[in-house]
Amino acid sequence: MKTYLNPGKENWKELVKRPQFESEFLDGAVRNILGRIQKSGDQALFELTKQYDKVEINSLQVSEQEFDEAQKAISPGLKRAIEIAAANIEKFHTDQKRAATVIETMPGVTCWRKAIPISKVGIYIPGGSAPLFSTALMLTIPARLAGCKEIILCSPVGASGKINAAILFAARFTGVSKVFKVGGAQAIAAMAYGTESIPQVYKIFGPGNQFVTKAKQLMSNEGVAIDLPAGPSEVLVLADETANPSFVAADLLSQAEHGEDSQVMLVTTNEKVLNHVQTEIQKQIATLPRKAIAERALQSSRGIYFNSLDSAIDFSNEYAPEHLIINSTQADEVAEKIVNAGSVFIGNYSPEAVGDYASGTNHTLPTNGYAKAFAGVSLESFTKQITFQKLTEQGIQNIGPSVEMMAEAEGLEAHKRAVRIRLNSIQKS
Amino acid sequence: MKTYLNPGKENWKELVKRPQFESEFLDGAVRNILGRIQKSGDQALFELTKQYDKVEINSLQVSEQEFDEAQKAISPGLKRAIEIAAANIEKFHTDQKRAATVIETMPGVTCWRKAIPISKVGIYIPGGSAPLFSTALMLTIPARLAGCKEIILCSPVGASGKINAAILFAARFTGVSKVFKVGGAQAIAAMAYGTESIPQVYKIFGPGNQFVTKAKQLMSNEGVAIDLPAGPSEVLVLADETANPSFVAADLLSQAEHGEDSQVMLVTTNEKVLNHVQTEIQKQIATLPRKAIAERALQSSRGIYFNSLDSAIDFSNEYAPEHLIINSTQADEVAEKIVNAGSVFIGNYSPEAVGDYASGTNHTLPTNGYAKAFAGVSLESFTKQITFQKLTEQGIQNIGPSVEMMAEAEGLEAHKRAVRIRLNSIQKS
Repeated sequence: MKTYLNPGKENWKELVKRPQFESEFLDGAVRNILGRIQKSGDQALFELTKQYDKVEINSLQVSEQEFDEAQKAISPGLKRAIEIAAANIEKFHTDQKRAATVIETMPGVTCWRKAIPISKVGIYIPGGSAPLFSTALMLTIPARLAGCKEIILCSPVGASGKINAAILFAARFTGVSKVFKVGGAQAIAAMAYGTESIPQVYKIFGPGNQFVTKAKQLMSNEGVAIDLPAGPSEVLVLADETANPSFVAADLLSQAEHGEDSQVMLVTTNEKVLNHVQTEIQKQIATLPRKAIAERALQSSRGIYFNSLDSAIDFSNEYAPEHLIINSTQADEVAEKIVNAGSVFIGNYSPEAVGDYASGTNHTLPTNGYAKAFAGVSLESFTKQITFQKLTEQGIQNIGPSVEMMAEAEGLEAHKRAVRIRLNSIQKS
Repeated sequence: MKTYLNPGKENWKELVKRPQFESEFLDGAVRNILGRIQKSGDQALFELTKQYDKVEINSLQVSEQEFDEAQKAISPGLKRAIEIAAANIEKFHTDQKRAATVIETMPGVTCWRKAIPISKVGIYIPGGSAPLFSTALMLTIPARLAGCKEIILCSPVGASGKINAAILFAARFTGVSKVFKVGGAQAIAAMAYGTESIPQVYKIFGPGNQFVTKAKQLMSNEGVAIDLPAGPSEVLVLADETANPSFVAADLLSQAEHGEDSQVMLVTTNEKVLNHVQTEIQKQIATLPRKAIAERALQSSRGIYFNSLDSAIDFSNEYAPEHLIINSTQADEVAEKIVNAGSVFIGNYSPEAVGDYASGTNHTLPTNGYAKAFAGVSLESFTKQITFQKLTEQGIQNIGPSVEMMAEAEGLEAHKRAVRIRLNSIQKS
């Protein structure tokens, strides 16, 4: 972790930069995969699974038997933990439902909005070194609460030809009926275009490697909705002199172990904390199973000391972290001043890990500074608002003349006439 | 307008298709413009304005004197109309504010969301044949209501070297301070990258030609937020035997005059209506100033008869129109069954034109079938929700064991330890 003391604002642009990864070379490879799925559907999926996952599978859809096996493979303790997490996630997201209010903007002119579920959504859950069944919970629970009719899930198979049991358990537990054994860019293409086995969806959610990310971007350019632009995961810990250095180190490491491309940032108003946390990191990292990954992530990470709390907060807002942990006895006051972040963890007993799994907030969050303009996944991500308006005779008479005046000024005569023809018919009757 | 009688579902995929426009050739040209702005900033903007708008300008930012001149150029009648429209838009969008509720998902685990304005937003308003000052209202009013700190607007100059007076009036009236004389892809690039004169923004709103659309897409691939994927404007009128054919024709024409690439769709459960509307269109189009544009748009438009109302509604939901006008005495019941549309106009006295200008709903809406997954612009489009969570000692004790169990199952030991270190410290104390 590189350290900086009181960097001036002129250096912030450099300091908030994330590690860059070249992805242009992926473009051709991913376009090729998308094209194959669009052209050959299921057949291409079988071929690509053999090619990339080195496994031959007979069917794409997970069978009842496979679900049953997964159910049996999960320990009662883990089941109970998943149930508790799911209950919290459900509670937090249920509260996001909002009833429509009808507004009479002028006498006889009523307008309202109605949230309607996106009828078909697709969820991608990566396999690999950490099977993210927690992400399955974070995406399938709000999808179900929103009322999406078709919720499908794709995840790659392991060497056994099967999807990780905990992912299958989570999907079934939250009510997803169709799960498909497909990974990578081909899974994104299958959900975007539809194949013989896999239904076409209108919006695609979920994290993934660079192939998946590129496929989501390319499909998004074709008009398929996606949850968020992607980037590696990150945390910023804002710590003052009251912070507990061993807690801070543990939080930084819990982010660093995610992947080599993760970035962890320590911003502190106390130089001793900067030093103590580094010592603690060295102590704690020694026995971590994913030590090598965490060490790589720490290489592109930063520890920054500011001599004023306001500068530290300003810097955090400029960085716009996916996760922000405020480790301070003044955490509540600091949290009030946060304007750019995905999710904020307030105080000594709120590690990022609780939000990653079970507190109830969603862990699908904007990375890479996108928190300046994007929010994390919520119930709303699975719905769209339709606006409605209804005018009475009185309504069109009240508003019509203004509309005519504006349409004329914009040179749109047919717009004006659509109003005039109605006003004339009312005057005649 | 091509007509179809009772088309079977197997033909719907073809019938919901929008006119296709090839935009691949734009890619290189627009990338070149983006690159020039990123490299040379203001200087490139002056050069491109000379090259594309055939005008030499001395300064990019609109001066107080130019605002004053615009103010004087607008008639009192139009000012009054804009005031009325603005008041309705403000009323409808103000109601979209939602207070945060704090949820205790488990004893000692509190979570909440807070809507925070996107601090810097940019709005693009095209010039050209129809100066869309109404779009300026639709985008600047919610931006101001949301509390965005920096709201900038770019619009191209005409032959006079000035921006349309009504656009300037609307911008000033709704409280936009900085307006810049820049159009096209270069305006999008300037707002995305920032230049010496034009501040960098985090989200870009507004319609435009194919260059603008392409620039927004390319910037969106670089992580700048945009309002919506773009496509030509469209309307679908759902009419039964109680519809008024001359109203329907007027509504179809008011959409057709927008542009040659507009699409208008008539879906009816009555064959006579299909014929009467076509006769009415011929009558009304004859005297339209934008007749040539409307005629071109009608060439790619469709009139479809269904012998059941349910099929007509299903078709409309499959088309997912930007604007849906329900012209029927049963309009309320039909509206209840709409699941895919941008904005819905209910009944005989609710032409699209009222929503385009003044009813209060937003007219920046999803086109091209995107209404299946996207909503139109709203107050929320100018904010992002940050989630917060705070755990007490009791909270981490309640939730910690579940988090540990799940982290272990995902193979993320450092996540587990971030919880364990806190539980241990509580047990010790």
